[in-house]
Amino acid sequence: MNMSDQEKELRVLRDQIDQIDQQIQSLLNQRALCAQQVAEVKQKHQGQGDAVFYRPEREAQVLRRVMARNSGPLPAQDVARLFREIMSVCLALEQPMRIAFLGPEGTFTQQAAVKHFGLSAITAPLGTLDEVFREVEAGTAHYGVVPVENSNEGMVNHTLDLFGRFQLSIVGEVELKIHHHLLMKAGADRHHVTRIYATQQALAQCRRWLDAHYPSVERITVATNADAARQASADAEVGLGAAIGTELAIELYPLQVAVRNVEDQAESSSRFLILGRQEVGPSGKDKTSLLICAHDKPGALYELLAPFRARGISLTRIETRTLSGPWNMVFYIDFEGHVADPEVQALIKELESESVELKLLGSYPQAVL
Amino acid sequence: MNMSDQEKELRVLRDQIDQIDQQIQSLLNQRALCAQQVAEVKQKHQGQGDAVFYRPEREAQVLRRVMARNSGPLPAQDVARLFREIMSVCLALEQPMRIAFLGPEGTFTQQAAVKHFGLSAITAPLGTLDEVFREVEAGTAHYGVVPVENSNEGMVNHTLDLFGRFQLSIVGEVELKIHHHLLMKAGADRHHVTRIYATQQALAQCRRWLDAHYPSVERITVATNADAARQASADAEVGLGAAIGTELAIELYPLQVAVRNVEDQAESSSRFLILGRQEVGPSGKDKTSLLICAHDKPGALYELLAPFRARGISLTRIETRTLSGPWNMVFYIDFEGHVADPEVQALIKELESESVELKLLGSYPQAVL
Repeated sequence: MNMSDQEKELRVLRDQIDQIDQQIQSLLNQRALCAQQVAEVKQKHQGQGDAVFYRPEREAQVLRRVMARNSGPLPAQDVARLFREIMSVCLALEQPMRIAFLGPEGTFTQQAAVKHFGLSAITAPLGTLDEVFREVEAGTAHYGVVPVENSNEGMVNHTLDLFGRFQLSIVGEVELKIHHHLLMKAGADRHHVTRIYATQQALAQCRRWLDAHYPSVERITVATNADAARQASADAEVGLGAAIGTELAIELYPLQVAVRNVEDQAESSSRFLILGRQEVGPSGKDKTSLLICAHDKPGALYELLAPFRARGISLTRIETRTLSGPWNMVFYIDFEGHVADPEVQALIKELESESVELKLLGSYPQAVL
Repeated sequence: MNMSDQEKELRVLRDQIDQIDQQIQSLLNQRALCAQQVAEVKQKHQGQGDAVFYRPEREAQVLRRVMARNSGPLPAQDVARLFREIMSVCLALEQPMRIAFLGPEGTFTQQAAVKHFGLSAITAPLGTLDEVFREVEAGTAHYGVVPVENSNEGMVNHTLDLFGRFQLSIVGEVELKIHHHLLMKAGADRHHVTRIYATQQALAQCRRWLDAHYPSVERITVATNADAARQASADAEVGLGAAIGTELAIELYPLQVAVRNVEDQAESSSRFLILGRQEVGPSGKDKTSLLICAHDKPGALYELLAPFRARGISLTRIETRTLSGPWNMVFYIDFEGHVADPEVQALIKELESESVELKLLGSYPQAVL
């Protein structure tokens, strides 16, 4: 076989691909037309201003169906990611989505916003969590994205505090894989490290690696990734300091990655919440988040958890928080289920009777991708 | 009409969308099968190791065709972006692409890499330009992405220098829209600014805005965006300094965006180059880059440019560089056309006869998106 036979074979295949591409393109535009009609129906019945174009539960269902019916050769995860972009592009045609996130640009929170809303959404970085809540409540942004498990210790408290002050719901969650690295000044010998700076979360996520490689090196907890990088770069003048952090931290400090991916779990992930003004219907696989203020008595937490166990409802997360204001012992609880489920409604009724105050933060589809 | 009529209308439309989605999904997988067959044909004829799966010229042609034949309602640009992701996903099935870029993660260079290769490529941040070239030359990475118009002054020189030392070609270019902001310490009054720090490039891109808003304020040129942010945050202790920069700069310095998007052109863009080991065939709309060392005599540059004019070949960029090593007056030239064009071949022959040395850096498709 010579070169021209190969060329002939390739030409046939490429013509096939071009045919397929034309069909895909035509279907994409047909899909956009249908999405436009959906928008028209909504506007006719709900009025221009009130119509809600983005339905998190519907999007989650589409993605789950795509993953379930995928027969390959493309991996289901990849096809679902393409569909998220397709939906993002169709939605942008109706209503360009403005997403406020805790900036600046280039951070993981922006990555989370893009992962959830696709590249067709307009992401607007804001300087503080308060501003994100405020813009979503005012309608200047359609949705907001905030970190809920962040290296910055104070952030979760602050986010929960803001849920108390603003009338917003959680309408979705995003998980993002984030890697930690050992960061050192260029040329510093990693065998002579005497101090390692990191946030509490980073130290926890890399504990086994640190125990194995730096069993007797002092670990210093700092408030933020930026602090860790700054202190390590100052220390490194005498060749002793290192930091554990993400690569964002080395953008402005004179540090390099000495060892990549030092987290214990091959894929540690951070979680972000999507804030909105709407309530989200059930998607079939949902989570509910609530804040609950317990009676100040022994065994209060145990009593709060008993109803979950009795009803076989899975808790996915529980955090104890000290909030500003009148509440003083508050639990943040995530569990599987939707407020539309009768079982969940009964649970909430029971919890309400046993607590000082209960605030439902929202029911929303579990992260699909 | 009542709620259930609306629900009925929506159900019909959503069923249509689901039907369309199933067809799209089926076609996506058919496309992937064809791409697998293309890979098999290449392997059969060229051997496992030598087969080149990624063809920049072919990808550019597909994207241009998509844009040309698009009838809407989706914007052509959006559909082309979806096709870039579709190609990225199909290619990853054959050969997960490893792309080295000048790190760290979260920078514009990473954004450029993702824009060009899609989200299915594996992007690997490296600490220095040398490492990016080295990994691509060694084959550890399939391609490299480096900034070629960067705020860091030394970078372009250094990149061009590296083209002299490594046997790599330019196989593509990426353009990325980048915004500049006026950055100040929180609470500082922007009417009392007395000094503005920025890179030469940033000052140039925001000149008209600065002339209008800060006509008599001192502008201080610094080497990097990070320097501008650091100096402004130090100055701001006394309430006087500001910086012009991108949002990446405020991740680690205590600055906030005082005024957004202060660049004169609504969309200023930065350019990045894709490095590879292969030569790229003509796509129909290409650029060629070369380094040329002129004879050290008066009018040398004019003589070099005359052949372009005579042949009606459009120059898109020309830079004068002082490189390390034996060359001392070197021009970096981009022009429209491909080395496979007879006219370009004649041009290069002519240029060679009039220069001390000429190094062809590559012909590659013009940025489509």
